[in-house]
Amino acid sequence: MNSLTDTTEAQPHYAAGFKDIEAAAQRLRGVALRTPLLESPLLNQELGYRLMVKAEPLQRTGSFKFRGAYNTISQFNEAARKAGVVAFSSGNHAQGVAAASSMLGVPATIIMPSDAPAIKIANTRAWGAKVVLYDRYKENREEIGARIAADSGAVLVKPYDNPGVIAGQGTVGLEIVEQCRKTGIVPDAVVIPCGGGGLSSGVTLALSQLSPDTEIWTAEPEGWDDTARSLAAGERKSVDGSVKTICDSLLPPAPGELTFPILRDLASGGLVVGDTAVKRAMATAFLHFKLVVEPGGAAALAAVLDGRINCREKIVVCICSGGNVDPAQYAAILGEQSA
Amino acid sequence: MNSLTDTTEAQPHYAAGFKDIEAAAQRLRGVALRTPLLESPLLNQELGYRLMVKAEPLQRTGSFKFRGAYNTISQFNEAARKAGVVAFSSGNHAQGVAAASSMLGVPATIIMPSDAPAIKIANTRAWGAKVVLYDRYKENREEIGARIAADSGAVLVKPYDNPGVIAGQGTVGLEIVEQCRKTGIVPDAVVIPCGGGGLSSGVTLALSQLSPDTEIWTAEPEGWDDTARSLAAGERKSVDGSVKTICDSLLPPAPGELTFPILRDLASGGLVVGDTAVKRAMATAFLHFKLVVEPGGAAALAAVLDGRINCREKIVVCICSGGNVDPAQYAAILGEQSA
Repeated sequence: MNSLTDTTEAQPHYAAGFKDIEAAAQRLRGVALRTPLLESPLLNQELGYRLMVKAEPLQRTGSFKFRGAYNTISQFNEAARKAGVVAFSSGNHAQGVAAASSMLGVPATIIMPSDAPAIKIANTRAWGAKVVLYDRYKENREEIGARIAADSGAVLVKPYDNPGVIAGQGTVGLEIVEQCRKTGIVPDAVVIPCGGGGLSSGVTLALSQLSPDTEIWTAEPEGWDDTARSLAAGERKSVDGSVKTICDSLLPPAPGELTFPILRDLASGGLVVGDTAVKRAMATAFLHFKLVVEPGGAAALAAVLDGRINCREKIVVCICSGGNVDPAQYAAILGEQSA
Repeated sequence: MNSLTDTTEAQPHYAAGFKDIEAAAQRLRGVALRTPLLESPLLNQELGYRLMVKAEPLQRTGSFKFRGAYNTISQFNEAARKAGVVAFSSGNHAQGVAAASSMLGVPATIIMPSDAPAIKIANTRAWGAKVVLYDRYKENREEIGARIAADSGAVLVKPYDNPGVIAGQGTVGLEIVEQCRKTGIVPDAVVIPCGGGGLSSGVTLALSQLSPDTEIWTAEPEGWDDTARSLAAGERKSVDGSVKTICDSLLPPAPGELTFPILRDLASGGLVVGDTAVKRAMATAFLHFKLVVEPGGAAALAAVLDGRINCREKIVVCICSGGNVDPAQYAAILGEQSA
C-alpha cells in the first residue's frame, strides 16, 4: 500500500491511500460497471436542491461490494488463488466475493446468516460458492471464518477491514468526481450508507483528495448508529445490536478498525434514519429514478430526503449502494407507500 | 433530411437517414443520459445465451421518448418556439415533449387519454405542460391535436411519424453499437418494444448502417400486433384495438406511415407476447437488473425470455424502453410473480 510506505509525517497513514484507489480503478476497468449518476429535474424542483444518485444497484451482483472483492482477490498470488477464499457476509459482500472468485477461478466459501434475504443466499450459491449458514444470534461469524481459514488454508477476505476492499469501494468516489466534473459541477455533499465503513471510508479517501470542499456524511439505521456515535465521540463505539431494522445490509455493531480513522479525520458526521424514512426513499427511487434499491442501500437517500442535513440550493450526491431485496418485501413496501 | 436529398437510386429514401441520427446524437450530448447496457452473468448462465438490456427507464423522463422530442423541438425556429408545441400521447411521449419544451423554453399542450397511468399525467403537468384529457374510446386524439394546432398556431409533434423523432430515437441504436464495440462484441439480435415504430425504425436505421449482420425484431402485445402482421404482409395492416393489455404504451393500432417502410425493408420480423410473459419479464428486470420497467417497456425482454426467437449461444440485446408504471400496479405484479 503506497500510503503505508509514505514517509512524510504530514500525511496520515491509513490502511489505503488515493493511489490504491487509482490502481483499483485500473483493475476494475471493463470488469465493474461504471454506474450512472442519475438525476430527476422534477424531483429537484420539488426539493429545492439538486439531488444526484449514484446507482450501485446496477453494479455487477447488485451492489458496490463487487468492486472491493474483485480488487482484493485479483491481487492474490498463485498459492492464494489455489487455496481459495473464505468470507462472512449478510449478503452483498457474499455475492461480490462469490462473483469475483468465480471470474478469477478461485474457490470460495461464504459464511452467511441463515436469516439473510433468500435472494442473497441463492445468488451466492448460483455464483458457485459453497455457502455455510450460521445463526446470527447464537454463533460468531468471525470465529467460523477463522476456523475455516485455519482448516483449509483459504484466505479470509473481510467485508470492510481490508485495505484492498477499502480501495476498491473508493472507486465509487472516483467515479462520482469524474462524472460531476463532466457536467462542470462540484458536489457540496456526498452521503453514503454505512455498515462497517468500507464504502464510506474508500469514498472519503477519494473525495478528500479530489474534491476537498465536499462534505462527507455517513447514514445508518436507528439503533445501529455506531459510526455516528463514534464520529461524535472521536473513538470507536459499539451499539448493542438489539434493535430491529429492515436495513439488513448495515448491521455491523461497530465501525471497522481500519475504516474508522479515515472517517474520524475526514468525514463531516454521521446521520441516522428510521425504517419509515428508508421505505419512503425506496419509493422515491422507484418513482423518480426507476431504480430498485434495497433498504440498507437507501439509507443515504432517506437521510437526505428526511432533511437531516441542510441541502437548500446545494448539490447533493447520495450513493444508493445496493438493490438486492426480495420481491415480496419490495412489493409490500411499495404498496404501503403508494396506498 | 440528408436521405431525402440523396439522389443515388440504390439508397431507399426514408423519412430519416443515418446522418440525421448522428446529428441527433450531437444535439443530445450532455442533455440525454447515455443509458447503460446491463448484463447479468447469473441470468446468462440460466438462459444459455448472453442477454443485454439497454436501460431506457433511466433516461430523462423515464423513457426513450425524451430523445426524439428534444431532437425535434431543439430544431424549431424562433417563430415555432414562440407558437409552442402540441402533442398527443398515452404518456411517455407526453413527458418527453413536456420536458424538452420546458428545457427549451417552448410552451407545450399535451393531449392525453383520461385513463393514462396517473404517474404519466402528473409528471407531464409537473414539467409545466398544459394537459388536455380525452376519452380514448369516444374521441379522436389526432383531430383534437389538429384543432389545437390550427387554433393556436402551435406545431404538432407526432409521437412517431416525424423524421426528427425517428432520428432522435435512433440514437439508442447508435449507443448500443458503440457500447457493444467497447467490449468487443457484435449483437446477433436486437429486440425492440414497438407501438407506432418510432424507436424500432430509428434503431433499425442505426443498426443497418453500423451492424448490418444484426437481426432486428419488434415486440408487441397480443391483440396489438399490427407491426408483426404488417411485416408478414409487406404492407401496413391495422388491428381493431379491442383487446385489453397492460402494455399501455404500445397501443397504436397501425404502424406509422414513415416508420413502416424502414421496418419492412430492414427488420427481420415482429414478435408478439401476452401479458403473463410481460409480467414475468418485469420481475426478471427487477431481480437481475434492479431496473423498474413498465409493462410496454418490457415487451422485448418478454419476447426473448419467452423463447420467441432462437437465442442459443447468441448475444441478444433487448431494449427496455420505459419505466413509468404506477407503484400500486408494479407492487401487484411483483407480488403476484413472487408468490
